Amino acid sequence: MKKIKIGSAGLGRLGYEHACNLATRVPGAELTAITDIDESKLKQVKSELNVPYAYTDFKEMCANPELDAIAIVTPSALHTEQIEIALNAGKHVFCEKPLDTNIEHCKKAEKVVEAHKDKIFMLGFMRRYDYSYRKAKEKIENGDIGRVILVRSYTQDPITTIEGTLAFAPHSGGQFLDMCVHDIDLCRWFTGSEPKNMWGIGGCFEFEQYRQWNDADNVGCMIQFEDETMAFMFAGRAAAHGCNVETEIIGTRGTLRIGSVGTDSLLEVMSEHGVCRECYPDFVARWHNAYIAEMEEFVKCIQENRKPNVTVYDGTAVSKIANRCKESFEKGQMLPYEK
Amino acid sequence: MKKIKIGSAGLGRLGYEHACNLATRVPGAELTAITDIDESKLKQVKSELNVPYAYTDFKEMCANPELDAIAIVTPSALHTEQIEIALNAGKHVFCEKPLDTNIEHCKKAEKVVEAHKDKIFMLGFMRRYDYSYRKAKEKIENGDIGRVILVRSYTQDPITTIEGTLAFAPHSGGQFLDMCVHDIDLCRWFTGSEPKNMWGIGGCFEFEQYRQWNDADNVGCMIQFEDETMAFMFAGRAAAHGCNVETEIIGTRGTLRIGSVGTDSLLEVMSEHGVCRECYPDFVARWHNAYIAEMEEFVKCIQENRKPNVTVYDGTAVSKIANRCKESFEKGQMLPYEK
Amino acid sequence: MKKIKIGSAGLGRLGYEHACNLATRVPGAELTAITDIDESKLKQVKSELNVPYAYTDFKEMCANPELDAIAIVTPSALHTEQIEIALNAGKHVFCEKPLDTNIEHCKKAEKVVEAHKDKIFMLGFMRRYDYSYRKAKEKIENGDIGRVILVRSYTQDPITTIEGTLAFAPHSGGQFLDMCVHDIDLCRWFTGSEPKNMWGIGGCFEFEQYRQWNDADNVGCMIQFEDETMAFMFAGRAAAHGCNVETEIIGTRGTLRIGSVGTDSLLEVMSEHGVCRECYPDFVARWHNAYIAEMEEFVKCIQENRKPNVTVYDGTAVSKIANRCKESFEKGQMLPYEK
Amino acid sequence: MKKIKIGSAGLGRLGYEHACNLATRVPGAELTAITDIDESKLKQVKSELNVPYAYTDFKEMCANPELDAIAIVTPSALHTEQIEIALNAGKHVFCEKPLDTNIEHCKKAEKVVEAHKDKIFMLGFMRRYDYSYRKAKEKIENGDIGRVILVRSYTQDPITTIEGTLAFAPHSGGQFLDMCVHDIDLCRWFTGSEPKNMWGIGGCFEFEQYRQWNDADNVGCMIQFEDETMAFMFAGRAAAHGCNVETEIIGTRGTLRIGSVGTDSLLEVMSEHGVCRECYPDFVARWHNAYIAEMEEFVKCIQENRKPNVTVYDGTAVSKIANRCKESFEKGQMLPYEK
Repeated sequence: MKKIKIGSAGLGRLGYEHACNLATRVPGAELTAITDIDESKLKQVKSELNVPYAYTDFKEMCANPELDAIAIVTPSALHTEQIEIALNAGKHVFCEKPLDTNIEHCKKAEKVVEAHKDKIFMLGFMRRYDYSYRKAKEKIENGDIGRVILVRSYTQDPITTIEGTLAFAPHSGGQFLDMCVHDIDLCRWFTGSEPKNMWGIGGCFEFEQYRQWNDADNVGCMIQFEDETMAFMFAGRAAAHGCNVETEIIGTRGTLRIGSVGTDSLLEVMSEHGVCRECYPDFVARWHNAYIAEMEEFVKCIQENRKPNVTVYDGTAVSKIANRCKESFEKGQMLPYEK
Repeated sequence: MKKIKIGSAGLGRLGYEHACNLATRVPGAELTAITDIDESKLKQVKSELNVPYAYTDFKEMCANPELDAIAIVTPSALHTEQIEIALNAGKHVFCEKPLDTNIEHCKKAEKVVEAHKDKIFMLGFMRRYDYSYRKAKEKIENGDIGRVILVRSYTQDPITTIEGTLAFAPHSGGQFLDMCVHDIDLCRWFTGSEPKNMWGIGGCFEFEQYRQWNDADNVGCMIQFEDETMAFMFAGRAAAHGCNVETEIIGTRGTLRIGSVGTDSLLEVMSEHGVCRECYPDFVARWHNAYIAEMEEFVKCIQENRKPNVTVYDGTAVSKIANRCKESFEKGQMLPYEK
Repeated sequence: MKKIKIGSAGLGRLGYEHACNLATRVPGAELTAITDIDESKLKQVKSELNVPYAYTDFKEMCANPELDAIAIVTPSALHTEQIEIALNAGKHVFCEKPLDTNIEHCKKAEKVVEAHKDKIFMLGFMRRYDYSYRKAKEKIENGDIGRVILVRSYTQDPITTIEGTLAFAPHSGGQFLDMCVHDIDLCRWFTGSEPKNMWGIGGCFEFEQYRQWNDADNVGCMIQFEDETMAFMFAGRAAAHGCNVETEIIGTRGTLRIGSVGTDSLLEVMSEHGVCRECYPDFVARWHNAYIAEMEEFVKCIQENRKPNVTVYDGTAVSKIANRCKESFEKGQMLPYEK
Repeated sequence: MKKIKIGSAGLGRLGYEHACNLATRVPGAELTAITDIDESKLKQVKSELNVPYAYTDFKEMCANPELDAIAIVTPSALHTEQIEIALNAGKHVFCEKPLDTNIEHCKKAEKVVEAHKDKIFMLGFMRRYDYSYRKAKEKIENGDIGRVILVRSYTQDPITTIEGTLAFAPHSGGQFLDMCVHDIDLCRWFTGSEPKNMWGIGGCFEFEQYRQWNDADNVGCMIQFEDETMAFMFAGRAAAHGCNVETEIIGTRGTLRIGSVGTDSLLEVMSEHGVCRECYPDFVARWHNAYIAEMEEFVKCIQENRKPNVTVYDGTAVSKIANRCKESFEKGQMLPYEK
């Protein structure tokens, strides 16, 4: 099987993680080019990962005829434009979440993707490729838990990274668009239904500075789906015990929980603190294998010419729902949702 | 210390449990009288537990001058009236939850209690006396988890008792008044705040018959408290894995979970199903020790002439909130709440 | 059913626990007399628990014609003699473990018990009455785990009580006779077989003072049973995480674990230490319900005139095995065992 | 950094796993050649993994000047000879455990390795490279649990693979040499001490056929180390709940457990069986990441010219101890051990 040559854009925390994976851990992939606006970082990563090409300009990278595919791991405001450039250059595209926080842009991205039906387009909702989440999905499809009643999903960043979190806050789009999008994607994936009504709430429980951006440090949101299924999401900026992502699916015949005790190893420590398990330090550690798995899937989709499970329409839907949650939070009201 | 002679009214499932505890497991208590409308059951329990007096009439029992206190474990529609009779007869009163589903009646009960300030009145929110919940409360008061951000509380009855659950449904007042009252009490207890807005949802996911009573087989409710604290409650009629009651309190400095894996023993079973822990079969098993502990507290309050932690006003507040949740569910709207 | 009037001998830590239970928590029991050599303690407990009679002399208590039964919770060197006095006085007898560390004395106790076949004699291996252990036993008898292959059993005292542990050390008979007797009883109970060979080892890992008593602060012992079943026991004086008693039974069809995470409540605490569960602080907390349950069983055996599950022969067998383990440890050799 | 070209010998279950990892998941490695006696399998894997060279003869592969290193994943009886061939051919060598079941051969391997000090030699005790085990080791070295008192280590194969296990039995060297070697390696690694005495026991609890090979289907072994540290090992052929490998290290200040509930994901399933976690189906799934990590380490050792943590002497020591355990089991006696 021919190796897929990939150019990866963006070398931030997650961009670097993807670059490393593509360079060394994703079977069938070859990290052939990278791009970033920070030239010294670009140089360093090029050398470290032995990458043939490095660019400061995204368009230039896309013009490289050796490349089969582009991975976009840049700020979300750039996504739509870069998707268009890459697809027009004849490349397959992997784009990090969210598709775009702006719905008009999402719609535009849909059009562009539709115009390149021969190309693979995949969105980075990596949780769907996490082993535990995949097992849960299989059990649901297998009927093991009967009909889904409630999806509960938490996303909590650790207190240890609060400085970076605060620095990023003004550009994050707010907690619903930044954090809850993953949970919204899971809710749609597990229920197979669309929201009917939603109500978002939240507060500044420790970090008052979020008020200036009409944001909160902790938010909750309840969603009623069209088929009566319920969802509750919670997102927090500063969990004491680490990066905590957990999801529960309650069904009429059983219940599934992923990450209820989301420990990063099989180690238990008994001490004066009791019987303790240690949590994931951050999202990169939590999703390390899922990031690899989603790229494996991207590569396989290209090799086997089939469409990935996560589509551009999922991206639009999730952003639309997240925006509506945010609106509900800002207005202090339950709001109806229309697809 | 003089033993407290108690007359217990009602010998249903929970009434019988209380009678047994008062007869044999509550230090300082003596089960001196019982009452029930079912004469054969009355006779049988009198003999089994060696109870001196048995009545079919509540008023008659209250007239017994030997009795110091009355425990009311009858249908909730009778509570207010029986509280009045007992207090007027000069007895201390323990009353099972809910105080009354009707708010006017609750207000009347408040007046009656206020008119007998020398008597102990205690409401049966037994979860507050459960060892795990008490430990959680202590940690919160100790500041261990910082400021409370979210309370999540589940109450799930087991599928194994669904027949009884369905038979009781028409008289239950609906899921919010029947089941969620315990969770509402916990939310108020843990947050120390009152609701500002609430939205109740739910559906008939398996048992369509609940629609005829404007009820659901599974409900969820999100509450925003006056101080921005959030709560999410979930109640279900038929959990596959047993009686599941769990509560989580997320704070700015830590998180507490009670009953996240609510197993009824320290036993783990490894088999072809994996590594399994078995759950409580029903609420009587789950709360066995809490039922004893609350009666111990009732007896001690009488002996030491001090007021219990759970007041008649808690009873009114909880019923009022539950009614408003139900109204929100029926109207399909988020509703504001006024104390 | 007539209440059983019990005289309880010994008001040490465990003696006081038993006295409280008999006074208030054991249905069918009445704590009618107590005895202790410490007169001020005797006076205080008599008043606190409202006990009609109090003695400094055991024989005198046994002469009280009101008493139906005697509970012996005194130092083990006194057990055999006191069993004889009580049985000869026509009382039923409950005796704390171990029966006696001296095998000759055990044999004598057997004879005395045999001479009073109309009296109930029960030995205090309370673990057999613990809810989790009973569930395990039921599953084994039910064939759920097939044939038993290995029993592993740990007994660890908490570091927090090390001072008392050290003070008691010279009189304890050593770790095998003091701590492992419970595990030995469980091994015999779960396997239904008798030891064939054994090898005890251990060391002074932290507390060198144990060497002066030919003892250790931590010991291990492997036992091969007559039917090839294996056992491994471990006992430690000073566990950091609290009182830890756990037992595992590996069978050909499944495995059972009791107390693998022996937490004292359903509470989980998430903090910078990870996801933690808190352990039992000491043996009294761990076995609180088991101590009540065994006394309930003792009372029921008297009321229903049937023999308890734990016999005087179990007491002899366990002491004999523990002595042989100790001998093996002292000689540094594997030793054969003969019933 | 130059990629390390590796030739891998043996395409059995584990050989294929290593080949796949070297081909696609180990940064810095290139799977350049493979060898197996089964020509059709050789052909298939060559094509599937895109391997440049394929041989049926090990010596021939070693003569390939392109190769930097050889991975030996063949039956253990071939190890010593193949190590010699590969080292003499100037290659670095990774060899699967056990080094050799025959101690004379091990000694010979030591000599060969010593004669090629410029070459990297590494033995495949992959558990040391498992993330959870590494974390445990770090904590011990950090002094978190004080002095090590006891190491308990279990290795249980799943019932689901019993047919293959039985087929392999006659060539396995018996349970101590086949399974316990991993646990022995861990005991030496965690205690830093050598055995002083040992006693192995076991039985045929379900599969009588093991008697014909002087073997058992379940064995236990207690080891006393020179510094008084204790160890207990257990190995079983047919665990109902899956591949179960767990290790506990009890220290004077705390206890560590790895894999106590060795579940293969973060998923919990609530159903009529209770609250269940699913176990690893087999050893390949359990150690997937450890197999990658050990090869990463092998490659890095070559690139950075430093010696791996697992030496040829570890291989000899472990085989020697395992043989002595087996001898003890066969003789039915505790045996002293001399380094």
